[in-house]
Formats: sequence, C-alpha cells, structure tokens
Amino acid sequence: MSKGITVKKDEDFSEWYTQVVSPEGAQLADNRYDVKGCIVHLPWGFKIARQVYRYLEREVEQEGHEPMMFPLFINKKNLDKEEEHSGFSPEVFWTTEAGSNKLDEKLALRPTGETQIYPVYANWLRSHGQLPMKYYQSRHMAYRYETHARPFLRGREFMFFETHNVFRTHEEAVASIDSDKRIMEDVLRDTFKIPFKFFRRPSWDSFLGAEDTYVADTMMPDGKRSQLSSTHDLGTNFAEAFDITYADEEGEHNYPYQTCFGPGIWRIIAAVIGVHGDDNGLILPRALAPHQVVITPILFGDEEVNKKIVDVAEKIKEESEYRVHIDTRDKNPGWKFNQWEMKGVPLRIEIGPRDLESESVILAKRTGGKQPVPLNNVNNEIRKKLHEVDQDIEKRAETYFSNKTHTVDSLEDVRKHLENGDGFVIAPFIDVEGDEAEKWSNVLQEKIPGAQICGVDPSSEADDVGKCVVSGEKASYNVYISKSY
Amino acid sequence: MSKGITVKKDEDFSEWYTQVVSPEGAQLADNRYDVKGCIVHLPWGFKIARQVYRYLEREVEQEGHEPMMFPLFINKKNLDKEEEHSGFSPEVFWTTEAGSNKLDEKLALRPTGETQIYPVYANWLRSHGQLPMKYYQSRHMAYRYETHARPFLRGREFMFFETHNVFRTHEEAVASIDSDKRIMEDVLRDTFKIPFKFFRRPSWDSFLGAEDTYVADTMMPDGKRSQLSSTHDLGTNFAEAFDITYADEEGEHNYPYQTCFGPGIWRIIAAVIGVHGDDNGLILPRALAPHQVVITPILFGDEEVNKKIVDVAEKIKEESEYRVHIDTRDKNPGWKFNQWEMKGVPLRIEIGPRDLESESVILAKRTGGKQPVPLNNVNNEIRKKLHEVDQDIEKRAETYFSNKTHTVDSLEDVRKHLENGDGFVIAPFIDVEGDEAEKWSNVLQEKIPGAQICGVDPSSEADDVGKCVVSGEKASYNVYISKSY
Repeated sequence: MSKGITVKKDEDFSEWYTQVVSPEGAQLADNRYDVKGCIVHLPWGFKIARQVYRYLEREVEQEGHEPMMFPLFINKKNLDKEEEHSGFSPEVFWTTEAGSNKLDEKLALRPTGETQIYPVYANWLRSHGQLPMKYYQSRHMAYRYETHARPFLRGREFMFFETHNVFRTHEEAVASIDSDKRIMEDVLRDTFKIPFKFFRRPSWDSFLGAEDTYVADTMMPDGKRSQLSSTHDLGTNFAEAFDITYADEEGEHNYPYQTCFGPGIWRIIAAVIGVHGDDNGLILPRALAPHQVVITPILFGDEEVNKKIVDVAEKIKEESEYRVHIDTRDKNPGWKFNQWEMKGVPLRIEIGPRDLESESVILAKRTGGKQPVPLNNVNNEIRKKLHEVDQDIEKRAETYFSNKTHTVDSLEDVRKHLENGDGFVIAPFIDVEGDEAEKWSNVLQEKIPGAQICGVDPSSEADDVGKCVVSGEKASYNVYISKSY
Repeated sequence: MSKGITVKKDEDFSEWYTQVVSPEGAQLADNRYDVKGCIVHLPWGFKIARQVYRYLEREVEQEGHEPMMFPLFINKKNLDKEEEHSGFSPEVFWTTEAGSNKLDEKLALRPTGETQIYPVYANWLRSHGQLPMKYYQSRHMAYRYETHARPFLRGREFMFFETHNVFRTHEEAVASIDSDKRIMEDVLRDTFKIPFKFFRRPSWDSFLGAEDTYVADTMMPDGKRSQLSSTHDLGTNFAEAFDITYADEEGEHNYPYQTCFGPGIWRIIAAVIGVHGDDNGLILPRALAPHQVVITPILFGDEEVNKKIVDVAEKIKEESEYRVHIDTRDKNPGWKFNQWEMKGVPLRIEIGPRDLESESVILAKRTGGKQPVPLNNVNNEIRKKLHEVDQDIEKRAETYFSNKTHTVDSLEDVRKHLENGDGFVIAPFIDVEGDEAEKWSNVLQEKIPGAQICGVDPSSEADDVGKCVVSGEKASYNVYISKSY
C-alpha cells in the first residue's frame, strides 16, 4: 500500500526515483525478487510497458516490418562470430546444464538478436526479389550480466524490441534510419512527450561491427543522458560475417546492406518517470496511462444517493472512449486521490451528493486545475482536459529539456555545467571520427571524469565552428557533451 | 517459397503436419534453428499465436486478472521447494555462468511459474482485504529439457500463459475453475472452433502438489489426445510450502486457497492445424487468420484496366471491418491462390477485367464454394461468407470429434479402437482415485501400451455404471481412455 513519497524530486532524484518505482510508490516494479538484477513488473508498470510496445509495434508494422520470434538460446559458435564485432561476451549468461546433464555445447542467453537472426537470414535470403527483408521481434527479454542494476535503467534481464532489416543498397539502409528517427519523433516526442536529440555517435562509440550508430538520447533530471534507441548502419559487415547473400538478376551473389533498430522499452519508461514526474509521483501522458480517467464516487451515508452516484459514474465510463476506472474501494477519497496522483493518472473525476444535485461533476487534472463541468457535456470535457494534460506535460518537458542544454566555448564551462548536473553541453570539438579525435575524447574524459561526446546531428556536415574546447585545434563540429548512465 | 504439400492428411498425418508447419508449407515455424528443440516462429505462425494470446488476455482480464511479468530465472532454493510437489527437476535448464564467472548459485530457467511467483505472493499478501488476488502473465516462454520436440506440440522452449490466483475459501477456488472452463468454451470452442472435453484427471495424473487437476483435452487426427489447458486446484498446499498467509478480521493468520490456470498456446495452435486443416494446408477460423480476406487482382496487359482493378481492391480493403490483404506480387494468380489456401486464409476475392465490367467480384471460401457478388454489396457478402466459413469449420470439427469418440464395454474393444487410432474410447472403469484404481490403470497400460485414463466429467458423480473393463469389478465411472502426446 502506498505510503507517499518522502523526498523531493529536485533534492534527491535517485531516492525519489526509487520510491516512485516501488510497491510503496506508483507500483511499477518490485525490486526484491531474489535473483540479483531481476525485477517483477507489477501490473501498473507492466501495462505502461505494454502501451510502449503497442505504439512501437504499430509503427514498425506500418513501415512494413513483419513480426516473428526467435529463441532465447544462441549457440556459442554463432555468438563467437559476433565477438569479433561487438564483444558482448563478458556480459553473456550461459546455460550449461539441463536436468542432471551437462550440455554438449553451452548456450548463451541472447544479449541482443544479431547473432541468432543473421545465420537464419543466410538460410532465408536467396534472391533479390525477397529484398527488402524487414522483420522485428518484440515483448521478449534480453540478458546481460550487469554489475549495477536499477529498474527500467539497467538490469540483468530487461525488455527488448528489435527490427532487423536487409536492403539491396546503402541508400535504402540510410532511408530506413530516417524512418527510425521519424518513429522516435512520432512515438517518443509527439505521443509520450519525451524530448530527445537524435545523434550520430562518434565513430569510437559506435556498435562494433557497425559503420555508424544513430541514437535518440534524452536527459534525465540528475544530468545524465539516457539512450532511448539505437539504429545501427551495419553496412555489409554482418552479411559478410554470416554469409548472407542474394542472387541478382544475373545470378551473381552479392552481400546486402543491413540495419537494426532497437528502442529501449525500459529506458523509455525511465524517461517518462524521470522527465514528467513531480514531487507527488508519476505523471502519465494519456497514451501510456493504464487508466486515463479515474472516477472517485464520494459516498456518504444515504444508500439511495450513493447508488445514484455510482450509476452516474458507470454511465460516464460506459459512454467514454477512454480507459476509465471507477474506484469503489472502501477507503476515504483523500487516500484515493493521493494514490491515483502518485500513479500518474491524467484525469480524476469526483462525484459527490452535491454534484449530483447540481448535475455536474468535478474534473481534476494531474498537472493542476480542478473545475466543475456539467454532466450533460462530460465526455467533451474529458476529451478536452486529457488533451490539456498532454499539452501541460509537453510544455513542461520542452522547458525542462531546453534548460538542460547549455552552449559554451571553453572546457572550464563544460566542466562547470557537468559537475553541476546541468545536462547537455554544446561545445566545439575537433571531430567525431578518426584516431586523433578519439584521442582528444579520451583527454576530455581524463580532464572531466564521466564526460562523453554524445554525437552530432546526423544532418550536420563538418564545418569551421571555432576552436575545439579540448585540443584548441580547429573544431569540425559543435558536439553534445554530457555524463551518461 | 511454397512447394505445396506432397502427402494426404489421412494417409500420413505426421508428415502432413510437418509439411504444413514448415517454411515450404504454411510458413508457421522454421525448425532448422541450430539449438535443438527450439524453433523460429515465422510471421504467419507468430501472428496466429498473437491472436490466441489476445483472446485469452481479454478473457482473463474481464475476469479480473491483472497482468504482470516475472523474471526468467528462479533460484535453486525456491525451485527445490516445489520439487517435493511437482518434480520438474529432471527437465530444468540451469544457467551457471556469466561472462567468465561461475555464478554463486545456479539459476533455473522457469519450467512453470509457481515456484517463482508464490514466494513473492508471500511478500505481497498481508490481509483478507487483498483477496481474491488474481494475476496472470502472458507472452513469455517456458523451458523444459524435452527429449523429443515437434513444433507447437513439444519443445525445449515454448509459449506460455498462466494465471495464479489466491482465494479465501475453497468455494471461490472451485468457482474460478468453472470460470476457466467457461473461458475455454468461449475461446476454444466458440471462437477457434476446437472441440474438446473438460476432464478431471485421475488423482494419479494430477499435478503433484495439487488437490485436483482439470484439463481441456482435444483429439488429434492420429488418435492421440492433446491437452489444451490445465487448471490446478492447489488447496492450501503451496500456501503452506511458501508460507503465504493472510490476516483475517481478528488478526489471525490463515492459509489461503490457490488455483492456477495454464492454456497451452502451442497446443491450441497444433489443434487448429490438426483438426481444421485439409490436404491443401491450413484452414483458419476468422478469429485467428492474420489476413481474413486476401484480394488477388487478376492483371493482364491493359494498364488502365489494371489500375481500376487495384483501385477497386483498395476501396474494398479501406471500407472493410476485416483484416484484408491485397496480393499485388508479380506471380500468377493460380500460384497465389494455392499459397493463400495453404496458409488457411478463410476468404479469397478475385477481381479481373471481366468482373470490373460486370461490377462484381468473385468470393471463394477456403472451405469450398465460389461465387460472384455485386460490388455494391461486397462488404455484407464478406461478412456473410466469413461467417459461413466459420460455420463450415465448426460443423466439420464437431463431426470429426464425434467420430473420434467411441463407447465400448470390453477391454478388447478398447484395444481395437486405440490400436486403430480411433481417438477417445468411453468405457466403465473402477474409479479415478485411490491406490486400487491406480493399480488397475497400470494394468490397463500394461495390456494396451499407451492407453491412459483421461479423466471424467468433473460434474459427474461416482455411480454404478456396469463392470470395469479392466478389473471386472463394479465400475464407478464411465471414463475416457486414449493414447496421448
């Protein structure tokens, strides 16, 4: 049962986050499961995750990706092929026994899908007529042996989503990266109201085996960036490693170009918690709220009046296009208000005996503001208020995000902002590829522990943008720098 | 690409099934994944599975079960607690290593949820006010070290669904078993058109640790029963083992009663394949068909006519309430008809130049029958024909099922029918509980290898029903006997 949140978000974000997530808070996850790094997804948290999945599934299917499902296990031989590329092996869980037998070959639990999917693509792909080949898998879990775990930020088991795409040309691969960016704009920014920057990562921070890595990064209130999706331009590297080829019109065998796209379901939830929440708990955009509207009947002694109030509530629910819940539990209304506020329900409706008399109900927005509306217009008012809550959330989030971004031109100012937890710093930097630039990135990290070059806007071209704040040389880009999870 | 099915269902069911499932058949699963006992779910198979999940999720949520998600891993201590009850340990996969480390304690991959969920229920449950407690998890996989694997019938990794319920009284637990039966009636029989019998298993075949086990069994064409769901009446056995208690109004701690319900997603798909399919492949009820209607435009040379045909197809799709797919691939229509027939699409629409002239289209049902309908009434006709296909499927399935059930009164006739692959045999048997009855059940198995007592209708009471076909003693029940997967 909820006890309320005992710290302010601004004063101790980490503790606030832990409390909001917990069974005593918004009841998203139970962190006490007795296998380290694994959580139980509680109904409220699970339903939010399910909404995130549904929006992403709808988008990628509209873009022509077909759903499928691969096994959990990857055999060692295939995983080792990727090791040359991506070096997941220190993080891999291994299943080695079954019953009382030792398995002939130990089996990896998938850390990500490439090494299980691409050998099968090599079987499937025969001819150019099958291209583009676009599949995805969703609602499965991935496994990594992480040292530090936090619900929805990092875990040994976490929710996964991945598209894996094969194209004839590199141009098509690039176009699919634009489409992934568009999906993030539609889902993350427009629907979940999470502001983010879409970056091309510096070459030294790309996925190993990828030509380039593109990400959607948001900023958490503690000043650390959180990666919400990645798209890898794999070139023909994996096709060559896994011998994926297609016959062209002349019967010649060619390596196709590949991309893969992975929005982080957990990270998106963490961003919703962190960016939108306030001292009273979660605030959910209407797309994600398991209950978009909660009606609390205010019941006193008179049975007949009570019955009428519940009837009104049920009629509203029945006629609504939204996910409406009526809370008839035997608790006092104040307790209920607090609980649904903590859980982030966008709109609360109160109906008491006096409202019944005046043929009105009270609408209270999670983002503030409470007013009576006439019963005969309640559905329009619900629609309007839910829209307002989304607008409030969006406006706050955009303000928050722009306050978390600072443009500077000296290393000292980079340091000040990062040490202060101010978020992103924009500063001129020598380059985002090449050994020389990577060396200066390492120097930056030595001088400001934790400072990372997030990347550049993929549409920006190298230009003379002043002096690099680290090397003092001519800078090629204004890059984003931040600390990171 | 589809090659068609080369055997007749009646002549070699096993080979027919393998061909239908395969990438060359209806493209449900790829069995060539290089970890033994694990399959890749192909898009067509995955989407069918997703429909099965959606119907079950809707039903159990309507019954008040809340979704949640537990980790894959179960620690050894908790799994061992169940071993006393259910003896899964010979079938359990163990994860013992991560990176280059040996784990301190090896972790089981869940064979089923009881031993991971009930220790957490012990944390959650405090007071009678929280009862009933009804949760479920869905779309996850379970793992068992099976020797023989067949897609959708048995695998080392398979699709799982489970509700776990806690009640104050045994009466409520029993009522929930009735509700599980009702769900199976609604979903399996009324929606997916799969006939089944709902049995109480003999006591010696109940889940260990359960007071009673109830199942929905169907009959496959090779004369083997397939269990499509199980509901266990756990009494207070697991509550006692995992120390789950609640405080009543007086503050006294009591053990609650528990049930769990597990429809087998895979087994349901196998039943749809086996019961409904014919020599040409799969036949899908409209609830499960990823495409309920496939439109094949018959395109010849004239570009302008072709464009008009495609426009008509798109208009039909746009105005339809069903899942309509337009197949514009550059293949001949006959090839397309065969492929969609193999994949079990309930309704095919053909539109050619002549149809355009007569302002009609051709509707062809997967269960037979093809006729032109006027374009201005096509939506009503689609609705009507889809309904007819479901009726055809249902009628065939009911006839099939009743032909697969024989009532006999001698062991010799039991033997004849079972050896002949005739399906269920109803015969008088001494009892379905007690050591004496179990002994005679063993005698039955010795005399007719593979013969199993499936169970009795849970609403039937023991009565004098003639002489037991095995012992010759007074029989208490007419039981169902069959071979089994």
